[in-house]
Amino acid sequence: MSQSGKHQVKLESLVQHINTLIDRQELVSNIVDKQEMRRHDLVQSLVEREKYSELRHLIDQLHPADIAFVLENLPLDRRQLVWSLVDKSHYGAVLLEVSNAVRETLLEGMQHDELVVAADNMDSDEIADLMTGLTPETARDLLSSLGENDREQVKSALSFPEGTVGALMDFDVIHVPIDDTLDQILGRLRYRRGLPADSRVLMVVDNKGFFQGTLELEALLIHPGETPVSEVMNREPIVFHTNDEARDAATAFKGYDLISAPVVNAHNRLMGSLNVDAVLDYMQQTSQKNLLGQVGLHEEESDLFSPIWQAAKHRWPWLTLNLLVAFIAALIIGQFEATIAAVVALAALMPITANVGGNAGNQSLALVIRGLSTKQLNRSNMMLLARKEMSIGVVNGLIWGGVMGVAALVLYGDLRLALVMQVAMIVTLFVAGLTGVLVPVTLKRLGLDPILGSSILITGITDTMGFFIFLGFAALVYATV
Amino acid sequence: MSQSGKHQVKLESLVQHINTLIDRQELVSNIVDKQEMRRHDLVQSLVEREKYSELRHLIDQLHPADIAFVLENLPLDRRQLVWSLVDKSHYGAVLLEVSNAVRETLLEGMQHDELVVAADNMDSDEIADLMTGLTPETARDLLSSLGENDREQVKSALSFPEGTVGALMDFDVIHVPIDDTLDQILGRLRYRRGLPADSRVLMVVDNKGFFQGTLELEALLIHPGETPVSEVMNREPIVFHTNDEARDAATAFKGYDLISAPVVNAHNRLMGSLNVDAVLDYMQQTSQKNLLGQVGLHEEESDLFSPIWQAAKHRWPWLTLNLLVAFIAALIIGQFEATIAAVVALAALMPITANVGGNAGNQSLALVIRGLSTKQLNRSNMMLLARKEMSIGVVNGLIWGGVMGVAALVLYGDLRLALVMQVAMIVTLFVAGLTGVLVPVTLKRLGLDPILGSSILITGITDTMGFFIFLGFAALVYATV
Repeated sequence: MSQSGKHQVKLESLVQHINTLIDRQELVSNIVDKQEMRRHDLVQSLVEREKYSELRHLIDQLHPADIAFVLENLPLDRRQLVWSLVDKSHYGAVLLEVSNAVRETLLEGMQHDELVVAADNMDSDEIADLMTGLTPETARDLLSSLGENDREQVKSALSFPEGTVGALMDFDVIHVPIDDTLDQILGRLRYRRGLPADSRVLMVVDNKGFFQGTLELEALLIHPGETPVSEVMNREPIVFHTNDEARDAATAFKGYDLISAPVVNAHNRLMGSLNVDAVLDYMQQTSQKNLLGQVGLHEEESDLFSPIWQAAKHRWPWLTLNLLVAFIAALIIGQFEATIAAVVALAALMPITANVGGNAGNQSLALVIRGLSTKQLNRSNMMLLARKEMSIGVVNGLIWGGVMGVAALVLYGDLRLALVMQVAMIVTLFVAGLTGVLVPVTLKRLGLDPILGSSILITGITDTMGFFIFLGFAALVYATV
Repeated sequence: MSQSGKHQVKLESLVQHINTLIDRQELVSNIVDKQEMRRHDLVQSLVEREKYSELRHLIDQLHPADIAFVLENLPLDRRQLVWSLVDKSHYGAVLLEVSNAVRETLLEGMQHDELVVAADNMDSDEIADLMTGLTPETARDLLSSLGENDREQVKSALSFPEGTVGALMDFDVIHVPIDDTLDQILGRLRYRRGLPADSRVLMVVDNKGFFQGTLELEALLIHPGETPVSEVMNREPIVFHTNDEARDAATAFKGYDLISAPVVNAHNRLMGSLNVDAVLDYMQQTSQKNLLGQVGLHEEESDLFSPIWQAAKHRWPWLTLNLLVAFIAALIIGQFEATIAAVVALAALMPITANVGGNAGNQSLALVIRGLSTKQLNRSNMMLLARKEMSIGVVNGLIWGGVMGVAALVLYGDLRLALVMQVAMIVTLFVAGLTGVLVPVTLKRLGLDPILGSSILITGITDTMGFFIFLGFAALVYATV
């Protein structure tokens, strides 16, 4: 009996244990020396396999999700070694569990025939998931190795855009005719010796194949065998369309406590089912994509063991944008060099408003991201939030700008500095509230991901505006007074 | 047949429709005038109820999750009005669906007896969820109104700390004796006319009440009725302890594709079950808590319609910290006023390193938060990530510091400025990588939430350090050359 809390601790010590086993073989240096040789060929040799028999035995006993955890926590060369020791029948399940970043490193070393074996143990929707990470040639080879039925389903799954219900659904559902009795269905289930792993409800269709409703397993248990399906089926289940947004489906699963729901196409023909485990995966992926995307990172960058040079290069696009925006801020400050030269204290105080503005903008941004993900925010109330965030900015600018004004007065004994501080805080916080809402909304209008890099953009804009407002007002005050 | 994609669109237009219905009664101004009168009493009067009969009819047909959506999207006075029209039997379900912020506004206007009615339709774990938002007196009253069995379960649920499996689990499970046959169990299920809403598996116990394993509903369907439970039960299901971390359980549900799992206490006595709908709720809440917590916001601040003054006050604690850190940065810059006065260009260029450092620090932070939530990061590999982030900082500092150095050279024709820019970028990005990892880790060591406000702290530290490094090195260069 495994227990989750201890289970996790076990997983961490498992990674350590595996590292120790590899070390004990004193083979690591050897492996590293043979960098050019395909790691895989190396371990395929019987002698090497024998050396790692204890390790292989250990890995054989693990759940694919646990193997995935171990692989993600090993440096590249050890990851390849352990991967080559994994039983081929687990390949598919493990590949589906690891993060995209780690999956790429595993696929690199695999041969076509191994991929075909891996696909053998996978559902067609899972194969489709895997396909998106393959090179075009490998994908074509894999596709041609499948049976006709599977191939059609994989193609169909691939045709649904990412983020739709079609791309998440499971093709493998049990159809039951609406005219059957419960006993007839039970007989068929017994003949099959069980349900597909992910099935939680049976799909009722009429004799033309059109979807009519669902039959819960529970109904089969509590009603007499001679009851017709049509009497106990659910004729109005929540149904999804293949082109529904996955995000909406996730909200529905959460709100209505769904476990499994039918998916139909535009002609009301049953295409498959959407199951809660796919929704759970989708939610976790989305939440992590948002977390990383906000600061301009991709999921690929989360592999702890990816080479530094590669990881550094991944950050260049957003770093360039970041520098560009910061450079604009520098140019703006440059316009006020005469003012700064006259009152050097301005240079010391100007980052305060910019910094506070940046954080306030990111607070507004977080509220927008939350609202978009829960569907609370839409076109009609977005301006309501912007107005509220701007009002909060003015209120807090009044209060805390005053506090900072007093601090500036105490520090420099210059009333004009205090005035500049007060006004700059109000205007900057006002602009921050507006920017925090407008940036994601504008990105969305432009057809871009409203979250991607929005934090970097907002910090850039609030910095630039913060300096401009502070120094511009200072220039006015010191020129006139 | 409802369809989710259209469903959401429907929900948004539903909110509009409800607003129109209220407007049409031309009662809103009237309601607003009577601010002092309890909204609730107002609508309780038959006359008023009659006026809103169309609205009430509409609301009666909605799923509690949809009512919750509508309530969250209405301003306070309209929210109270619609809430008073909701059928009392739905109170419990709606209260559980709305966000904490909105729940508070609904509970404010409720009377004790209404709460008791609401609790009547709730499971004890749900009542416990609700209790955490009540005033102590209301909570006590509610508790005393429950039957003894329910009261004990609610107390027990409340005794589990937030974030543990015990606090998420469902008490309502079906026990089956290990010595029974499948037919005996089927008979009992038919007598009950169904399973509890959340039950997906049956719990097998021995005659002393100790947990022995689970029986899948599927087993009841595919095996002959005379089969003993002991033959077809799952003796090694994944089991959780009441004090396991909810986060670990969520990872296990995702990895092992669980729908429902038994929960036992330290004495291996069955306490309840953990179901995927609770895990889904937990995951969504956590993801939003992290999103908001990072920038120092609480979930309570996400109510679009909370008063501005209240919302502004909520931001004070972090704003104070933010200003304090920014003020320290200002004091540091103040130390270099002589250098800035001599070379004013420094004032223009110094925010570049600070800004880039802030964003880089937040990128490292996002990777830490992701790693903590997937359990990829732990004490043993945290320094590995810190080293990697620092290395990336040095690599990118070398390259992009060089680029910015050239830009400074072109702009100001001063080689010393270019040198300062180059060195400051390398050191600042190095510090940013270290800070992005160290801040959440330190918060965690101090027993604080590693995510709460970490973004504000990191921006503050990278700003301060960015200015110090840039100006400090500039002071050295210009003093000596």
